[in-house]
Amino acid sequence: MTQLTPHPDRLLPADPTTLAIARRLYGEVAGAPILSPHGHVDATLLLENAAFRDPAELLITPDHYVTRLLHAHGVALGDLGLADRGVASTASGSDIWRRFASHWHHFAGTPVRYWFETELHDVFGITEVPSADTADSIYAQIAAKLAQPGWRPRALFERFNIEVLATTDDPADSLDAHRALAEDPTFHGRVLPTFRADRYMDPSAPAWRGALTAIAEAADIDTGTYAGLIAALRNRRAHFITHGATATDTGVLEPTAEPLPLAEAERIHAAALAGTATEADAVAYRRNMLYRYAEMAAEDGLVMQLHPGVIRGHHTPTLERFGPDTGHDLPDQGSFTRPLRRMLQDFGTNDTFRLVLFTVDETVFSREIGPLAGFYPSVYAGAPWWFIDTPAAIARYRSAVTDSAGFAKTSGFIDDTRAFCSIPARHDMSRRADAAFLAGLVATHQLGEDEAAVLIRDLTDRIPREVFRL
Amino acid sequence: MTQLTPHPDRLLPADPTTLAIARRLYGEVAGAPILSPHGHVDATLLLENAAFRDPAELLITPDHYVTRLLHAHGVALGDLGLADRGVASTASGSDIWRRFASHWHHFAGTPVRYWFETELHDVFGITEVPSADTADSIYAQIAAKLAQPGWRPRALFERFNIEVLATTDDPADSLDAHRALAEDPTFHGRVLPTFRADRYMDPSAPAWRGALTAIAEAADIDTGTYAGLIAALRNRRAHFITHGATATDTGVLEPTAEPLPLAEAERIHAAALAGTATEADAVAYRRNMLYRYAEMAAEDGLVMQLHPGVIRGHHTPTLERFGPDTGHDLPDQGSFTRPLRRMLQDFGTNDTFRLVLFTVDETVFSREIGPLAGFYPSVYAGAPWWFIDTPAAIARYRSAVTDSAGFAKTSGFIDDTRAFCSIPARHDMSRRADAAFLAGLVATHQLGEDEAAVLIRDLTDRIPREVFRL
Amino acid sequence: MTQLTPHPDRLLPADPTTLAIARRLYGEVAGAPILSPHGHVDATLLLENAAFRDPAELLITPDHYVTRLLHAHGVALGDLGLADRGVASTASGSDIWRRFASHWHHFAGTPVRYWFETELHDVFGITEVPSADTADSIYAQIAAKLAQPGWRPRALFERFNIEVLATTDDPADSLDAHRALAEDPTFHGRVLPTFRADRYMDPSAPAWRGALTAIAEAADIDTGTYAGLIAALRNRRAHFITHGATATDTGVLEPTAEPLPLAEAERIHAAALAGTATEADAVAYRRNMLYRYAEMAAEDGLVMQLHPGVIRGHHTPTLERFGPDTGHDLPDQGSFTRPLRRMLQDFGTNDTFRLVLFTVDETVFSREIGPLAGFYPSVYAGAPWWFIDTPAAIARYRSAVTDSAGFAKTSGFIDDTRAFCSIPARHDMSRRADAAFLAGLVATHQLGEDEAAVLIRDLTDRIPREVFRL
Repeated sequence: MTQLTPHPDRLLPADPTTLAIARRLYGEVAGAPILSPHGHVDATLLLENAAFRDPAELLITPDHYVTRLLHAHGVALGDLGLADRGVASTASGSDIWRRFASHWHHFAGTPVRYWFETELHDVFGITEVPSADTADSIYAQIAAKLAQPGWRPRALFERFNIEVLATTDDPADSLDAHRALAEDPTFHGRVLPTFRADRYMDPSAPAWRGALTAIAEAADIDTGTYAGLIAALRNRRAHFITHGATATDTGVLEPTAEPLPLAEAERIHAAALAGTATEADAVAYRRNMLYRYAEMAAEDGLVMQLHPGVIRGHHTPTLERFGPDTGHDLPDQGSFTRPLRRMLQDFGTNDTFRLVLFTVDETVFSREIGPLAGFYPSVYAGAPWWFIDTPAAIARYRSAVTDSAGFAKTSGFIDDTRAFCSIPARHDMSRRADAAFLAGLVATHQLGEDEAAVLIRDLTDRIPREVFRL
Repeated sequence: MTQLTPHPDRLLPADPTTLAIARRLYGEVAGAPILSPHGHVDATLLLENAAFRDPAELLITPDHYVTRLLHAHGVALGDLGLADRGVASTASGSDIWRRFASHWHHFAGTPVRYWFETELHDVFGITEVPSADTADSIYAQIAAKLAQPGWRPRALFERFNIEVLATTDDPADSLDAHRALAEDPTFHGRVLPTFRADRYMDPSAPAWRGALTAIAEAADIDTGTYAGLIAALRNRRAHFITHGATATDTGVLEPTAEPLPLAEAERIHAAALAGTATEADAVAYRRNMLYRYAEMAAEDGLVMQLHPGVIRGHHTPTLERFGPDTGHDLPDQGSFTRPLRRMLQDFGTNDTFRLVLFTVDETVFSREIGPLAGFYPSVYAGAPWWFIDTPAAIARYRSAVTDSAGFAKTSGFIDDTRAFCSIPARHDMSRRADAAFLAGLVATHQLGEDEAAVLIRDLTDRIPREVFRL
Repeated sequence: MTQLTPHPDRLLPADPTTLAIARRLYGEVAGAPILSPHGHVDATLLLENAAFRDPAELLITPDHYVTRLLHAHGVALGDLGLADRGVASTASGSDIWRRFASHWHHFAGTPVRYWFETELHDVFGITEVPSADTADSIYAQIAAKLAQPGWRPRALFERFNIEVLATTDDPADSLDAHRALAEDPTFHGRVLPTFRADRYMDPSAPAWRGALTAIAEAADIDTGTYAGLIAALRNRRAHFITHGATATDTGVLEPTAEPLPLAEAERIHAAALAGTATEADAVAYRRNMLYRYAEMAAEDGLVMQLHPGVIRGHHTPTLERFGPDTGHDLPDQGSFTRPLRRMLQDFGTNDTFRLVLFTVDETVFSREIGPLAGFYPSVYAGAPWWFIDTPAAIARYRSAVTDSAGFAKTSGFIDDTRAFCSIPARHDMSRRADAAFLAGLVATHQLGEDEAAVLIRDLTDRIPREVFRL
């Protein structure tokens, strides 16, 4: 390609018959507003609405989807702007960008390449293909845009046509940024907090003790006891709800949920504070907490998102130098049917409870997630996540889940991203992938095109609104 | 769709070149007689040949493929006609049907939708698309048909062009209905019993004790000892064979087969009767029984069907209220290579022994079932089962298994259904899926069309006859 | 098919738009030299350059891909030329060939069929379709060719356009054949040894003791101690490097690598020699040896190939009669993320270390291999292996791995074969499969055709050269 020109039919099927159907279906939702019920953009970004500092800081350094593949090709994380043991990187934005641009060919066929092509072209008006030669020119063009008011976060938020953006927040967070945004008459988007209480679950984690202190202050409840921690979590969930939260998120290695008797939970809580808890204690405590999170969700109606199966910080030396979320969180085998049995026994048919299951192990889609969502009213099949948030994997997901659960028991698309400027590209990718899948059903006479048109509108708008109680 | 009109090319590929080939291949078998070597229709249905009571009782209430997805959308099982703790449902047939029809859109893209479209149109001549508005009209049309002699079980059996129908029966069953049908000069179909001895395997199951009593009476052999139970099972297998049985079926959670010394088996049998058997005892007993079932199959030549990996009654509250087979039997991870090793060491190359492996975990097709069927003369790859008895999964199955095992080591299609009227639709779906897969091989020049035509005829007729010794 | 005429477009997509692109991409590499960095051809075959004895001995008897499916259809291995407990088979070459030819239809849709069609037609000029009727005629034609100088190993090696052929060799091997070939001015190919030290890893294996003796003699180092064994292995790796080796290969059941303290390794080594080592000792010893193999690779730069997850000799009676590699090595579930963690912690970002991961469990491609290769500079995703070295599985592999790792972190094609005459057919199959996959990306506008043309050239030539340090 001599020019960066995303094709209007990209990701749509090659077969002319199916392509014509897919074009019409995509047309139904191409311009629909974006609902982003799960992601990692910071609310303060929109509150402060400061200009983005430079292209590398905006697009490369914080995006572990980008840095991990550069690292896989021998680029040191420090040379991509990451601080090394707290020491800031000396790499300049243009150096970082040049490193990315000269590895552009290594992203061929990956979703990162796909997102960047759309993003560079549609958001920043770039028409050159990134390379060592074009790097500086593209960098300068983006930098020039970022200096203009039209490329500040709020302007982009409006141009991206984002209606709802959910953030991910710690229970101890004051949510002042969310409140300020909601009260700001000049900002019209909905930015909702999401309650993520992972660090309160694991008494064997170094961060647990500090987390207890933080939430104790936030809730003004003593968390020296297990009952106190539960009370503080309930208190903060209510606080999140008053600030517009409709969902929680929980990341665990294995999704087993098993309640403990109060006395046993208190014993482990005390032992953990005393530094005498065993690993078995920690496992039992985590499984009890996951059960309690479901129990609370059945009480207050916050939609429970579950993201299991990722081994975090697989490469300890990199973790120690560059910290978490640096590209070596890696998938493990997944399972839901057994681990979730007790939780679903007790809450699976509860009218208030809602559980959205995500995975990085595709094998569970047809084997477990589809069948679970195809029986339990509370269970929804989350969109392909992280490593499998790709056009090809979305096609496999639809094929695997639809058989058991249809379309209305899936979650709708989740971008799950820190990369603010990639949000429209990601949602567009999902809409194209759904159009392609539905067109295949229409072309093989499994579905009428009129019904497919309703379905793609539902998948883009009605379903995420309902599933996430927006 | 304003009209319910199943397209003649449905499920065939969209690409014109491949479609033309697929049409010709499908034409080879579109009208072939149905061989149904595994299913759950009751022989008495055909013996008594009574008119079906009403559309809901025929098509909705007993079909957990239908009720589970309605339940997933919040419809109570009691409102679908299921008895709640033995108390009959007060829902009328037309109410139940209306509930189904108003959720018709929720089945879009699922095999249930596909089967119903074909079944409603071809069997009952319905041309309206089900919905809340058309529900009563469609219900009345079906009810009117059911009152006519042409829609009684035997008339449908003939119209469906069913040549062989295998039922699933308990070893203690007298098989009187099968004998009467075989002796009835006015009925020309073959209705064969299948020996399913699951409830004799698990001494930790409440039903085990009663099962021992039932088979003791049927075989007139004391089952107070393990040797007695084995003798009784042998006796009943012989009884089944004299009534035309060619196969057994066994459903287990995990397929490990390990023989026990007689004395140890007797010890556990006695302990179980005395109520003192441990869970470890029960596991060892079940694994020994699975081994013995294979041993008996190697003696008497009944084809052994194995259906592992389903966690039955996942939602205990629903199980307690509405009983088994109510939509919450859910898949677990599958494995065969290790668990079957001892069984295949001893019987895998035995001329009489034949083992058909089924799974609800698609990952074992390319990893285990294909390779096992590609070496062991006794092992056949069963058609995709239950949650994966779908057009998309059949395509994945053929793609995964053919590489290692070709076509002639697969079982041919199994409908495995309680839904009598769906049998033609299900077999037709499988024939179309096979035509589509073979057409893909022809269109990419991996197979000649003449050879593909032979293969689809074999898959539909010769192969199931041979594999199940019909 | 009345004629055996491999179609020029075989394996390329049916859709005309995509087909046109795929033809052009395939054309870029159709005639490229063959790089075979992993296989099982014996160097002495090329050194001695003797005429192949007969078609069956060349094409059937030693090829377990062929014999296993014939065995699955009831053909006894002894009737295919395999020695039974050391007693030579009485089956004549033409009898063996006739058995194969009369089962030709059973290979329909399998890669073996695909390879044979190409091989029989392109290498031996056969135009008849194999069958019982044509068997003798085809046998005679091949036999006549084998008697001619143009069909001796070296002539075929040149005609096949093989530039590099890696063999698989025991550390105790003198590599005299490799040296002689390298010094032979009349032979221009590169035949490189590969260091495969499996039999030194497992002190519980009967062959271990003999292996220690063999390598002790080869290295002239006493292997009565663990330190001695490690020294001998280092010594032999150096010997292999001087004879052109660039890689090692290791086959294990599970890929866990965990170092042991020297004293503990010595204790187990001594206990194993004394016959007192426990199974737990053997496990710990094997895991330590796998770790040490990685440690040595990080020192000397031999590329480490890892082939885990195959249960060898699944059917003991066949193993005892016909020996290893007779078709019943069967896949088990695979995993890498956890088992390799310690190895990758210590060597994953080492500049010298390189690890190519292979699997027979497709589920690990998107879940583990792609993500690992997408972060660790040292990790490469090996081509689909053995049961999944097929056109359909290669398409699934590319779709699963590219998302996380792109193309440049994959290994390039590996034929892994003992069947010398199938090498061109296998590489051609892979080139066609890659052309088809890339054409799909181009046709859906995810990749420009110019970039796809560069990629298929890289996948065929540059990438295997770099990955295997050729």
